[in-house]
Amino acid sequence: MAMKKIINAPENYTDDMLRGIYAANDMVKYVNDDLRCYCIAKKKPDKVAIITGGGTGHLPLFLGYVGDGMLDGCGVGGVFQSPSAEQIYNVAKAVDSGKGILFLYGNYTGDIMNFDMASEMLDMDDIETKSIVGADDVLSNANPDARRGVAGIFFMYKCAGARAAWGGSLDEVLAAAQKAKDQTRTVGFALTPCIIPEVGHPNFTLKDDEMAMGMGIHGEPGVWNGPIRTADELAAESLDSILKDMPVAAGEEVCVLINGLGATSQEELYILSGSVRKILDDKKIRVYRTFVGEYATSMEMAGASISICRIVDEEMRKEIDLPVHTPFYTQI
Amino acid sequence: MAMKKIINAPENYTDDMLRGIYAANDMVKYVNDDLRCYCIAKKKPDKVAIITGGGTGHLPLFLGYVGDGMLDGCGVGGVFQSPSAEQIYNVAKAVDSGKGILFLYGNYTGDIMNFDMASEMLDMDDIETKSIVGADDVLSNANPDARRGVAGIFFMYKCAGARAAWGGSLDEVLAAAQKAKDQTRTVGFALTPCIIPEVGHPNFTLKDDEMAMGMGIHGEPGVWNGPIRTADELAAESLDSILKDMPVAAGEEVCVLINGLGATSQEELYILSGSVRKILDDKKIRVYRTFVGEYATSMEMAGASISICRIVDEEMRKEIDLPVHTPFYTQI
Repeated sequence: MAMKKIINAPENYTDDMLRGIYAANDMVKYVNDDLRCYCIAKKKPDKVAIITGGGTGHLPLFLGYVGDGMLDGCGVGGVFQSPSAEQIYNVAKAVDSGKGILFLYGNYTGDIMNFDMASEMLDMDDIETKSIVGADDVLSNANPDARRGVAGIFFMYKCAGARAAWGGSLDEVLAAAQKAKDQTRTVGFALTPCIIPEVGHPNFTLKDDEMAMGMGIHGEPGVWNGPIRTADELAAESLDSILKDMPVAAGEEVCVLINGLGATSQEELYILSGSVRKILDDKKIRVYRTFVGEYATSMEMAGASISICRIVDEEMRKEIDLPVHTPFYTQI
Repeated sequence: MAMKKIINAPENYTDDMLRGIYAANDMVKYVNDDLRCYCIAKKKPDKVAIITGGGTGHLPLFLGYVGDGMLDGCGVGGVFQSPSAEQIYNVAKAVDSGKGILFLYGNYTGDIMNFDMASEMLDMDDIETKSIVGADDVLSNANPDARRGVAGIFFMYKCAGARAAWGGSLDEVLAAAQKAKDQTRTVGFALTPCIIPEVGHPNFTLKDDEMAMGMGIHGEPGVWNGPIRTADELAAESLDSILKDMPVAAGEEVCVLINGLGATSQEELYILSGSVRKILDDKKIRVYRTFVGEYATSMEMAGASISICRIVDEEMRKEIDLPVHTPFYTQI
């Protein structure tokens, strides 16, 4: 499989992308003369700032959720690489309004190291930070604390973002993120690999009729490779894994997120969404809201993920329903 | 290239997709017990109804623009096939509020035949219709009337939709669509083919390092096949074709639409958007608004298109700025 991408020099991939984003949108900007220090153009006063970060190659994750009602800033790393501690620190300084800062990002070693370092740097400036990581990928590890963060972080962004927009304290915003985390599980599967621009070839291969259940958004191996299954079968197996890990009783309510990994068409995502819905209906699990589209991708990887977010109270419903607006995601 | 799709039986592709869409969204419904008669759930009173239609495989085109401030209904065909005249007729009957109906769709023979037939059927019911086709694909034909309609139809939907939402007459809504049509041009290019589910293999091939400039969204041949060019080169060649066909002077204003054909990542679309912006800046052509994302796809085809919509008056600005909300597209 050769690399077929619309790019200029591969080494400029991340910065060319960022220039394109800034030119197209005036609600975001960069600070410290560093394109990768991405934040909201107008700092919001008297509000807990929420900062995320992570590697390039997952749009709209991570920077795409910076905007009204969601996040305030994002440290942008190279393709599948963590942003530096300095970049995270600079973003934090730019958006801090004195109410403290929540770091909310995915559970990956490089990111944890750099966010922790940024936290120490901010501590020396008397800026309080708290941290929480998304770790929703059920099949990535039997131990919940060791799981990777994938598309389910959307619900953490949404709930924490709402709580911050409503003037919540740092502890309250953290609690909203924690509640969304506790109630969210994801299972994903890939049909093709993707290619890192500076590498130029896939770092693994799948046969012509083969897929990988549980594959991570950087191509981390999953739980099985085998012939491609139907949408109905994939929905059934994924929900089975999710509901074994987080039981949802008949009559309870969930949000569903059907996420495309990049190359998979919206037609397929809606077919998959329909398959998921049939199973939930059969189980008498009520669906509060269904989100279908690209929320956390792996460039041009074909595949999808299914996230279930259990709605446990009216507060969560309100957080999820809060209208938000970013250059990549608008909900009314 | 084998088919790698998340589907059930290929022959159920369109209807499975539609079931998924209806289950996920309550602002749309189907009428006449036919999933393919797609329309807004609550008919809007005293308003010109705008109806589109076309084949499946281009989401969010066509049905994705049915919603508040845009379209009222859509006849849904099978993959790359026209809806039937009866389906278009049934949609029209369901959304008609007595102010007339605008048919607004792409310039393809099958669609023209069936929309014209539906128009005759409605005429017998004393329902007035007018028709206009999108034909923005510059490289598809030297003769503007013979060009295919592609992503630029978005601007026709947006402008006509706004005019209808504001209570415009059928002639006024048609005029808004016509003005947007006159000012919009598109050039697209493909890096990979796509596969029709019931066929199971691509109907053409591109070599590992090959792309096709000017290829249509059903795989219609373009103007050249050759090695993949850079984003900067593709932007330059595309804008050259567009601006030769529709000159835009320094100081004039345009909207830019960077559309992904399906498998191309958002990262690449923003790189391409940045390339386009540099050229427009150099030419001192002002950019009023940039749209980046998937607006008219060809399932899992890799590639993109660039549309330029020249803004000629304040009316167009207002039409383009009107907030709209559909299950697939929200603009505030």
